[in-house]
Amino acid sequence: MMPPYDRMPGNRDACVACDAADPLAAHRAAFALPPDVVYLDGNSLGALPRATAARVNAVIEREWGEGLIRSWNGAGWIDATRRVGGKIAQLIGAGDDEVICADSTSLNLFKALACALRLQRSSADTKTRRVILSERGNFPTDLYVAQGLIDLTGAQHELRLVDAADLVATIDALGSRLAVLMLTHVNFQTGAMHDMAALTRSAHAVGALTIWDLAHSAGAVPVDLRAAAADFAVGCGYKYLNGGPGAPAFVFVAHQHLARLSGDAFAQPLAGWLGHRAPFDFEAAYAPAAGIERFTVGTPSIVALAALECGVDTVLAAGIEALRAKSVALTDLFIRLVQARCPLEELRLVSPRDATQRGSQVCFSHPHAWPVMQALIASTPAVIGDFRAPDILRFGLAPLYVRHVDVWDAVDVLHDVFIRETHREPRFQKKQAVT
Amino acid sequence: MMPPYDRMPGNRDACVACDAADPLAAHRAAFALPPDVVYLDGNSLGALPRATAARVNAVIEREWGEGLIRSWNGAGWIDATRRVGGKIAQLIGAGDDEVICADSTSLNLFKALACALRLQRSSADTKTRRVILSERGNFPTDLYVAQGLIDLTGAQHELRLVDAADLVATIDALGSRLAVLMLTHVNFQTGAMHDMAALTRSAHAVGALTIWDLAHSAGAVPVDLRAAAADFAVGCGYKYLNGGPGAPAFVFVAHQHLARLSGDAFAQPLAGWLGHRAPFDFEAAYAPAAGIERFTVGTPSIVALAALECGVDTVLAAGIEALRAKSVALTDLFIRLVQARCPLEELRLVSPRDATQRGSQVCFSHPHAWPVMQALIASTPAVIGDFRAPDILRFGLAPLYVRHVDVWDAVDVLHDVFIRETHREPRFQKKQAVT
Repeated sequence: MMPPYDRMPGNRDACVACDAADPLAAHRAAFALPPDVVYLDGNSLGALPRATAARVNAVIEREWGEGLIRSWNGAGWIDATRRVGGKIAQLIGAGDDEVICADSTSLNLFKALACALRLQRSSADTKTRRVILSERGNFPTDLYVAQGLIDLTGAQHELRLVDAADLVATIDALGSRLAVLMLTHVNFQTGAMHDMAALTRSAHAVGALTIWDLAHSAGAVPVDLRAAAADFAVGCGYKYLNGGPGAPAFVFVAHQHLARLSGDAFAQPLAGWLGHRAPFDFEAAYAPAAGIERFTVGTPSIVALAALECGVDTVLAAGIEALRAKSVALTDLFIRLVQARCPLEELRLVSPRDATQRGSQVCFSHPHAWPVMQALIASTPAVIGDFRAPDILRFGLAPLYVRHVDVWDAVDVLHDVFIRETHREPRFQKKQAVT
Repeated sequence: MMPPYDRMPGNRDACVACDAADPLAAHRAAFALPPDVVYLDGNSLGALPRATAARVNAVIEREWGEGLIRSWNGAGWIDATRRVGGKIAQLIGAGDDEVICADSTSLNLFKALACALRLQRSSADTKTRRVILSERGNFPTDLYVAQGLIDLTGAQHELRLVDAADLVATIDALGSRLAVLMLTHVNFQTGAMHDMAALTRSAHAVGALTIWDLAHSAGAVPVDLRAAAADFAVGCGYKYLNGGPGAPAFVFVAHQHLARLSGDAFAQPLAGWLGHRAPFDFEAAYAPAAGIERFTVGTPSIVALAALECGVDTVLAAGIEALRAKSVALTDLFIRLVQARCPLEELRLVSPRDATQRGSQVCFSHPHAWPVMQALIASTPAVIGDFRAPDILRFGLAPLYVRHVDVWDAVDVLHDVFIRETHREPRFQKKQAVT
């Protein structure tokens, strides 16, 4: 069977035709998108599902307002962290008892990293297995969390950062000194996607554990944590999962580690009452829940979880494999059109050209990336992407609601911005190619 | 001037008259309360402010749906943690640059306790100053958080629990061995309220720092952290602040400690990107914000913060001193009526009889507390309080929306439940007094 998106439309009408034939076209209608906006920033904040406002309103007016405290059981609030976690599990190749939604990605990473280091304490070479390896250019919060945990636990570990290309060699060279390989699957800035299974194999080969940050993966690219034998993972609810600004995050812990950790009360060190095996017994001593529930801490926002659930449902309804097929088509089209219509020496593709190594975003560097992005956002239609310091134009192409015609229009606007700004300000761009 | 609530109404009509004269009466109309419910559980989950649904809807439909990523600046999302924190600061005697809203009470306590222990590292007697003192019967999550932090940092500290009556003597006896006094201001189970200023003085006299959990205080009783010279505090958004189920919590750090901690990057060890001094510079090394912002970690839920802000606004509109006056009147009335109409040997007042030592809740113990509470909730009107293991009937009297007539009706139902259940099930209650 031919994949549905193998054509490369050469003009706007052809893009419209592609969209008409798009098997996912109907899913765009599930989102409330403003007019005159081409939204290429779903990797920063996913768009609003139409179902969310009514669902959140029902939680507020009916469940909270009328049900009051009774809704913790009566409306299933107490199960929300597991229920939404179970839905996300379907998108990332995890068991529904391996994922829970709570807190932020940063906090979940703290929990996962603390657990991973704790598991390594039982290794024979614990004295020398002290390196946490990550990528230079990883999202900073991941590095900050590791730095904070290392400092708090007495500086017994070292965070080492290398370029992506050097990861495998570094893993091999570190050998039994490597405790944890901690990576973001799809890079926030370049969109480059790691081979999770291969890197996990390399890490396991030297006795290390892996933590995968799926912030730019969940809902955007198929992830199979179980097939990759991943140990821990965390991820974000407000990007491709469309959970709303600051939506709760999720954490994955593989079955076998949950079992290994079960005798160690504080392996997950952020011990809170909802992680207790019996929160309503109000025991003075912490005894964690046997399963993934121990990764909850305090009481989660039910309103925020309800919004997130609506967002996750939009992804499940489309199916992650279908979304990936469209994402590859859109990102390929975007790169091809930009390179054809804005062939500027200073505009460089930062994302991998090969779709198999790329998430659902495309980044270009340009020395004037900041004013260019401001001009894009101020255009009609507004083309909303992200500027990322120092010189990155970042465009997320969320396949649930971005169309081929949006890609065409965005490149049209980008082209206009370069032409216009070049005329206005010669310094803005040194070499304007004929387009 | 006479306080407005000094009368003790002797029948239901007198209660109605009290409510008619209540200067806070109009504030009840700001809440959406279901019919046929006497809600005495605002200390578990505050009632729904009428403004909340529309405000949250505007955040979702307008700010998120239309504004999309632009709303982080355009709609002030980026300031929400400080803005809501600043409002709460007004209720607890803090500067608006000393309080921030984020995460859960448990997580904020982890941050505060880690900071307090870090500050004590610089004391000359750091080797021996190793005790974290709290109260037996403190809310368990506070104890769990301390246990988790102690374990994570190598078991160098000890959590010691004593009865409330023994706190001062224990502080004095511990002397320079006391690192941190960590207490909940109003006990979750008994409603007993500590003398914050006196205990803080005792702790400071031996060189210790204090952390106050205001979960059952903020919005219920006046708190003056600055007058008490408190060091750290945390508190809950979903009880008397009416922020909704699992609302974000808050954390207070006194000015002088923020300044002392400023040179210590990981004093607040949950280092996340929004605590960084320049999150959007995406630096690889963590450098905390100078102020209270360093107590944020990951991206907070904007929807949850919007709901919390509506709740805090209801408290600010009434004024905390006025709320306290009414709270004292309601809790006194409740105790007097229960003792008069349900004079059962087995029904014992657990809360202090003296209002100056009590928060805004009243608790009784009864050997059949669980079925009694179930019967209250199943009655018409439903009287909703909490059962707390093993034998506590807990009633929160949130003065924003609880009326004198609600207290009367609640005791009526309680009386009926005891009569009815006694007839149905002789074991239920051994001695039924004449009422």
